[in-house]
Amino acid sequence: MSGLLPRGGTIIGTTRTNPFRLEEGVERVLEHFRSEDLDALVAIGGEDTLGVAARLHAEHDFPVVGVPKTIDNDLSATDYTFGFDTAVFIATEAIDRLHTTAESHNRVMVVEVMGRHTGWIAVMSGIAGGADVILIPEQPISVDECCDDLRRRHDRGKDFSIVVVSEGYELGEDDAGAEDEVDQFGHVRLSARGVGDRLAKLIEERTGYETRVTVLGHVQRGGTPTPRDRILATRYGLKAADLVQEGRFGQMAALRGDSIVDVSLAEATAELKTVPPEWFHVAKAFFG
Amino acid sequence: MSGLLPRGGTIIGTTRTNPFRLEEGVERVLEHFRSEDLDALVAIGGEDTLGVAARLHAEHDFPVVGVPKTIDNDLSATDYTFGFDTAVFIATEAIDRLHTTAESHNRVMVVEVMGRHTGWIAVMSGIAGGADVILIPEQPISVDECCDDLRRRHDRGKDFSIVVVSEGYELGEDDAGAEDEVDQFGHVRLSARGVGDRLAKLIEERTGYETRVTVLGHVQRGGTPTPRDRILATRYGLKAADLVQEGRFGQMAALRGDSIVDVSLAEATAELKTVPPEWFHVAKAFFG
Amino acid sequence: MSGLLPRGGTIIGTTRTNPFRLEEGVERVLEHFRSEDLDALVAIGGEDTLGVAARLHAEHDFPVVGVPKTIDNDLSATDYTFGFDTAVFIATEAIDRLHTTAESHNRVMVVEVMGRHTGWIAVMSGIAGGADVILIPEQPISVDECCDDLRRRHDRGKDFSIVVVSEGYELGEDDAGAEDEVDQFGHVRLSARGVGDRLAKLIEERTGYETRVTVLGHVQRGGTPTPRDRILATRYGLKAADLVQEGRFGQMAALRGDSIVDVSLAEATAELKTVPPEWFHVAKAFFG
Amino acid sequence: MSGLLPRGGTIIGTTRTNPFRLEEGVERVLEHFRSEDLDALVAIGGEDTLGVAARLHAEHDFPVVGVPKTIDNDLSATDYTFGFDTAVFIATEAIDRLHTTAESHNRVMVVEVMGRHTGWIAVMSGIAGGADVILIPEQPISVDECCDDLRRRHDRGKDFSIVVVSEGYELGEDDAGAEDEVDQFGHVRLSARGVGDRLAKLIEERTGYETRVTVLGHVQRGGTPTPRDRILATRYGLKAADLVQEGRFGQMAALRGDSIVDVSLAEATAELKTVPPEWFHVAKAFFG
Repeated sequence: MSGLLPRGGTIIGTTRTNPFRLEEGVERVLEHFRSEDLDALVAIGGEDTLGVAARLHAEHDFPVVGVPKTIDNDLSATDYTFGFDTAVFIATEAIDRLHTTAESHNRVMVVEVMGRHTGWIAVMSGIAGGADVILIPEQPISVDECCDDLRRRHDRGKDFSIVVVSEGYELGEDDAGAEDEVDQFGHVRLSARGVGDRLAKLIEERTGYETRVTVLGHVQRGGTPTPRDRILATRYGLKAADLVQEGRFGQMAALRGDSIVDVSLAEATAELKTVPPEWFHVAKAFFG
Repeated sequence: MSGLLPRGGTIIGTTRTNPFRLEEGVERVLEHFRSEDLDALVAIGGEDTLGVAARLHAEHDFPVVGVPKTIDNDLSATDYTFGFDTAVFIATEAIDRLHTTAESHNRVMVVEVMGRHTGWIAVMSGIAGGADVILIPEQPISVDECCDDLRRRHDRGKDFSIVVVSEGYELGEDDAGAEDEVDQFGHVRLSARGVGDRLAKLIEERTGYETRVTVLGHVQRGGTPTPRDRILATRYGLKAADLVQEGRFGQMAALRGDSIVDVSLAEATAELKTVPPEWFHVAKAFFG
Repeated sequence: MSGLLPRGGTIIGTTRTNPFRLEEGVERVLEHFRSEDLDALVAIGGEDTLGVAARLHAEHDFPVVGVPKTIDNDLSATDYTFGFDTAVFIATEAIDRLHTTAESHNRVMVVEVMGRHTGWIAVMSGIAGGADVILIPEQPISVDECCDDLRRRHDRGKDFSIVVVSEGYELGEDDAGAEDEVDQFGHVRLSARGVGDRLAKLIEERTGYETRVTVLGHVQRGGTPTPRDRILATRYGLKAADLVQEGRFGQMAALRGDSIVDVSLAEATAELKTVPPEWFHVAKAFFG
Repeated sequence: MSGLLPRGGTIIGTTRTNPFRLEEGVERVLEHFRSEDLDALVAIGGEDTLGVAARLHAEHDFPVVGVPKTIDNDLSATDYTFGFDTAVFIATEAIDRLHTTAESHNRVMVVEVMGRHTGWIAVMSGIAGGADVILIPEQPISVDECCDDLRRRHDRGKDFSIVVVSEGYELGEDDAGAEDEVDQFGHVRLSARGVGDRLAKLIEERTGYETRVTVLGHVQRGGTPTPRDRILATRYGLKAADLVQEGRFGQMAALRGDSIVDVSLAEATAELKTVPPEWFHVAKAFFG
């Protein structure tokens, strides 16, 4: 091991291309697998990767087992995916640093964190870092309500606020800019790149408070993994090896409580795990 | 919150003195509690603190609820105590740093981590950091067996090894130095301060490999808590408030799986939670 | 000291308002200073704060000494300002983390760092973090030249690139979007908030490489200061105390080589210290 | 660069064996160098490595240039060596963490840091971390004087103190234990491994304050280098390449102020750079 530290990212250079979307993609995967004389595939990834693995197994009896790895933590059959603890660590560290910069009156800091469909990183880092408002896809707080919260805080003498927003948070129809499209469901398709920028602009316009934005981006996917993520990955790896050894294909290693179990890939990828309302309660306990 | 970051340690300056060991200690606690006109006490600590809380409740019907806080993670009624994740983080970071210093042939690094009665920090940081040998109170690996493992590694061409040892690891009778006492059970009472130093000396003598030691000490108790520890503490705090509100005294907040429940203080302090053998299996998966 | 860790940010809640821009602003400062019966003012800040201090001293013989504190490191009379080393540390950490996320073909990561008028943070963190292109206000590399560099890299088989850009980097006339204004000098006034977003969009459009952005924002102003910044601040503080003691007002503590000296506030704020060309040479040594 | 982060330690597996101390050691070096048809050697290290380089050049006209790398920062011809900033960072982080553990009355924390002959790491990390007493080889503070300082602090109501000690700090004759040897100069040769342990024991015995020890050891040599160390190493490397290119052998890259210059290896290794008294003054400014 000496000299080799655990780190995030991909080393062997695999791609996340979905073979079901390529012409003859699946056939080429099957052919390549046979020609390399492989016995089994361990698919490590999130809903996309594991969804493909589930279909490969269901439709082609492909000898695959899964390991749940996504910083989004949105797989329903496991309590935690690995990568998530590290992403929360990095996002929390950023929020901590913002807390120490409270140098002006009536300033708002917006932090955009990852989470395309769910607010796990936003909620966890927001609680850990002491955010004042947390905006996630699961909970319908509008930008106006967010601004109301900020005004109430500042009226009570708090002149510095931190807003954490998931990249997947959706602006309402009224929040669209002239250059955005609004689709038939009233969802806003941003012309600009990210929700963090737009949100900061809207907050500044509506409250008059100077608003600054931090967009962490892929920084959350990298860095040295936390011990918890390394241990979880180690335990998942051992479980995956056992599943392969036992020929129990189509299954995925999962964490339930503090135990490693296995669940079917079909079940694991059936639906997204969203943030349940009790976490909003924890988050709100410290707002104000 | 602005400007106030979470941090380890004690702010209000409480002591860990056991009132049951002081003359009229308990009477003074009861009297002081009444004179301050308090409604309830939230006891935050490990087996010592919570053991006192359990007795105060059992013997005096004292209105106390408990929160499990110890870096040792050795309370049996909860999956995790807070403080532990941070201690593992700090210990793992130290092991990581040692990995990058492998500059000489046949060198051994000993890292002494906390854990008076159990090896939780050693096992978790050892797995996460990629230690080559882990010595803990629960598992009877002698110093000679440790030296054999190191020789086998080095014979296979690995010329750098990391040994993680819990402060509570007990040397055998044969490992005692001239200046140590050996009690009637064959346990060694070290004349020197810590087991890490002694172990390093024994390894160097018996294997001839240059051996260096790192003793982390109270560094493991401090620093910025990990997000996981902060969230766990937040959830425990909310549960403790609920327990007080509901008058359910004599109970302790606990983590079971991913849920916060409550257990009786008596149960929580009945016995230590030691590292179960399945964790040795995980640790061994990467040895060699 | 116990329990009090050094941290970034402002504790006493001062403002950066320029009294010379307020009606009777200077008169109120002078009056307030007299009414509090103060002997001296230690002005801690960058070109704005110290520029005001210089004028207060020059025009009103105000008893002020200066300490150079700005993360931008753009004060000409001192080798380094404090805050800068910490900002470079945080920006480098972000670049490090991006390096480990190289998981897709032909992807570009843009990191926007602070530096309104100068590229110090970009150059230093870019060298330390191994950036592939560094765009700063001082050096006229156009977006097209940047895209050419990226294409050449990717043609040579490097399919992952990191671009670090100072917030003060100016887009050329050809890089303006439909919604931006271009002033009479051909400078682009961005309608969107930051140069990082716009640059990422332009790179993606022109090269076809998937491009992601990280905007660190005020995260760079906070966090635990590096030991070097703490020591520098300590030494500056001692010098400032000496200057006050000796009645040498209108002077600023400065670092020259490894020595703390003093220079006149007028000299210190006369012009910005830009990144000299030899640093581009260091940065380019590792490009490719 | 992608995926390869800077890290401490040795990658190519060189040794620090001194060829002048091996029989025919130098002859073998010269022969090996010729047989590999090499043009030049870049020697990267501290006083030992560069001392050998200086002799190889002086006695054999060996084509060698030097780069000053040692965490001890004790080379007289350069303001800073690389590795030092990182070691100070790690030691300061440890001291920071100890500050947050001040949970008991009258407790002393001893931190042993590296520095065989000089106190650079101790002084810098002690100032940055806010140590209360700093013990280094250069300054004759006895253990008794240290204990007096601690008593005075605690008498003034400070009940928690941090003592930083260099590994090279020498105990006085009166501080020897029964098992230590005292040589003819009154220097103590410790039977135990390190000065930190012994110092903690002496402080506890003489003051009655509970005393704990942290021995960082090789942790200070590893980890991710700070940006400053990376930049310094980069600049040194460029200078070394220039020196080789120009055939200017027997020279060493050095930092003077903020400039990279070159000095002769003979000069650079003539004497150790010790901590000058003005640094004690900075350190003392915050004691108490």
